[in-house]
Amino acid sequence: MEFVHRTLPQQVYFGAGRAAANLAAEVRQRGASRVMVIASPRERERAERVCARIDVAVWHDDVVQHVPVATAEKARSVAAEHGADLLVSIGGGSTTSLAKAVALTRGMPIVAVPTTYAGSEATDVWGLTEEATKTTGVDSRVLPAAVIYDAELTLSLPVGLSVASGLNGLAHCVDGMWAPRADPINQALGAEGIRALARGLPLIAADPSGIEGRELALYGAYLSAVAFASAGSGLHHKICHVLGGTYELPHAETHATVLPYVLAFNAPAAPEAAGRIAHALGSDSGTAEAAVAALDELRVRLHAPTALRDYGLTEADLPGAVERVLAVVPPSNPRPVTGNNLTALLRAALTGAAPATQLEEI
Amino acid sequence: MEFVHRTLPQQVYFGAGRAAANLAAEVRQRGASRVMVIASPRERERAERVCARIDVAVWHDDVVQHVPVATAEKARSVAAEHGADLLVSIGGGSTTSLAKAVALTRGMPIVAVPTTYAGSEATDVWGLTEEATKTTGVDSRVLPAAVIYDAELTLSLPVGLSVASGLNGLAHCVDGMWAPRADPINQALGAEGIRALARGLPLIAADPSGIEGRELALYGAYLSAVAFASAGSGLHHKICHVLGGTYELPHAETHATVLPYVLAFNAPAAPEAAGRIAHALGSDSGTAEAAVAALDELRVRLHAPTALRDYGLTEADLPGAVERVLAVVPPSNPRPVTGNNLTALLRAALTGAAPATQLEEI
Repeated sequence: MEFVHRTLPQQVYFGAGRAAANLAAEVRQRGASRVMVIASPRERERAERVCARIDVAVWHDDVVQHVPVATAEKARSVAAEHGADLLVSIGGGSTTSLAKAVALTRGMPIVAVPTTYAGSEATDVWGLTEEATKTTGVDSRVLPAAVIYDAELTLSLPVGLSVASGLNGLAHCVDGMWAPRADPINQALGAEGIRALARGLPLIAADPSGIEGRELALYGAYLSAVAFASAGSGLHHKICHVLGGTYELPHAETHATVLPYVLAFNAPAAPEAAGRIAHALGSDSGTAEAAVAALDELRVRLHAPTALRDYGLTEADLPGAVERVLAVVPPSNPRPVTGNNLTALLRAALTGAAPATQLEEI
Repeated sequence: MEFVHRTLPQQVYFGAGRAAANLAAEVRQRGASRVMVIASPRERERAERVCARIDVAVWHDDVVQHVPVATAEKARSVAAEHGADLLVSIGGGSTTSLAKAVALTRGMPIVAVPTTYAGSEATDVWGLTEEATKTTGVDSRVLPAAVIYDAELTLSLPVGLSVASGLNGLAHCVDGMWAPRADPINQALGAEGIRALARGLPLIAADPSGIEGRELALYGAYLSAVAFASAGSGLHHKICHVLGGTYELPHAETHATVLPYVLAFNAPAAPEAAGRIAHALGSDSGTAEAAVAALDELRVRLHAPTALRDYGLTEADLPGAVERVLAVVPPSNPRPVTGNNLTALLRAALTGAAPATQLEEI
C-alpha cells in the first residue's frame, strides 16, 4: 500500500429545487459583493431564476466550446471592468471552463452550478484553445470553491445525451481503477460513482422527468470527476483520446462503446478492481466475468452504442490506431498491452463482438 | 438527496518504511526552512530517524495528554522564539493535538506523522484543557496540510491497544452512518474504513509484527477520521461520552462494548446503512441481522470486551445514564429513542447480552 493522495477542498451542495437558496447562502457566507455570472444565452432564463436571491454585478454570456483564448480574454476584461470578486457559472462544461479560464489569471473563487453531467466543476483542470490546439493544465485556482447541484436543472437534458454523458462518467470511474494515480481512496469514490450511475441512468431512460434518476446521475457524475481528477487517465481514456483525435469519432459514443472492452481486457489482471466494479454494478459475484456481464447488461438496458464501425472507424484504421495507443499506454495498466491483444480489443469494439471475448486468463 | 458536504484539503502519503523520504519530499515541496518537530521523549529516537533527511530548527518534547493550556502556551513560545515556519508532529493523538494548538494561534502548516490509530491528524478539530475542562473547536488552520502514514511506525503498538484503538475507529465509521451530517459521500468513505479495519485488525491480532494488518488498520483509521469529521457524532458517541464523562468508564473499552448494541438498535431502522455496514464487514447478505452478526463475529475474533459491568458500571447507574443520554440524542438518529428502549440497550451492554436482542422490527 504505497501512494500519495491529494484531496481537493470543496463545498458541495445537493438539493433538488434548492439552487437559488443554496447559491444565496454560499454568496452570503463568502461576503462577495460583486458577482459576475457566466451563463450562455440559452441558459439565461434559468440562470436568472437561480440568481433570484443574489445581487448580480454583471452577466456574461459569451460562452464558446473549448474556450478559445479570445473568449477567455474577453471574459477576463469584463471581470476586471466590473471589479468582480466572485464568479458564478451556470451551465455545462463549456461554461464552467470559461469561469476557470477567468479564475486562472484573476484568482477569484468560482461557485459552479452545473446543468449537465460533465463533471468539470469538481476538478482543478483547465483548458484553453488557440488555433485549433487545446492546452490543458492543473491549477488550484481553477477548482470551484463550491458546487451547487440541483437535479431539477438537468431535467431538460435529453435522454440520449444524459445516457451518453452518464456513461462517460462511468468510464471515468471504471478506468480510474487502474489509472496512473489509482489508490484505494479514489477507487472507493469511483465505486460509489459507479453505484450511483448504474442505478440512476436506467431510471432516467425509463422516466426522463423523474427526479430520483437525475439526482443519482448528478451525484455519480460528481464522484466520477473527483475520482478521475485524483486517479488520472487510464487505458480506456488513452484509447478514446486517440480515436477521437485522429479518427474524429464522437466523444460520448466512443466512450460508451469502448468501455466494456477495456473492462474485459483488464479485469482478469485486476481482480480487486473487478470485484469493486462488479459489486458496484449490483452483481452479487465479484469476478471479472460478473463485472463484464453487469456492464454489458447495463449497456443493453440503456440502448448504448455497441460498435465503432457505426461511427466511421474501419478495419483499415486499426494498425494506425494500435500504434498510436501503444505509445501512450499508462505503465500502471494491470495487463501488459501488446500489438496483438490491443488489435483484438479494438477489432472487437469495431465490430461490436461480445466484450467477454476479451476476457482472458492472465 | 439533500445535503452539504465539505471536503477538507489534505495530502496523504502512505508507504511502509517511507516516512523519512516522504517527509523530506513534503518539506522540500513546501520550501520550509525553520522546522519545529514535536515528539514526546519516548518517541525521540524514532522521530530522529523520521527526520534524518530534513533540517530541524528546534525539537520540542513537552507533550501532555489533553493539551493543558499552559503546555500549549509553552509550545507556542518555542515556535515564536525559533521563527518556526512548519510544524512536524510525530506521535499519537496528544502530539498531533499539541501541534494543532500551536497552529491555531500561529497559523503555520502542520505535517503530521502518526504512530497510532488515533485519527486526529485527519480532522480540523482542536482541543485544549484548562482546570479540568476541555474546550474543543473546529478551525481550518489546525487541519494538517499533509499526513505521512508509515505502518512500520505502528509495529510497536501492543495488540490490545491496537485492537481497542481500531475498534474506536470502526465505531466512527459505523456511527457516522446515522450521524447529524451523514451523507452518501462520508458514508462511502466510512464503509471503506470499515472494510479496511475489519480486514486489518484480525491480521494484527494474529501477527502483530506483520505489516499488512498494520497498513490496513492505519488506512482504516485515516478514513474513519475523515468520515467522522464530516458526519459528526451519532448516538453511539453520545452514549460513550456520557459513560466516560459521568461514570469514568475507560474510553476504548466502552466504545468496543457499546458499538454492537447501537448497531443492532439502529440497523433495522436504517436498512441502507445496515447494508453498507454488513457488506463492508464482509457479509454477503445486506440485512440488519447480517450486519449485527458480522460485527459480533469480529468482536469475538478480536477478544474485545463485551460487558460494561466489567468496567464498573452498575444497574443502579442506568436511570441516570439514560436521562443524560436522552438529553443529547441526535435528531438524525434513525430509530426513535425512548427511556424504555434506551434502558434496554444499556442493560444489554451492561450485562453482555447478545447484541441481536436489540434488533427489533421498526
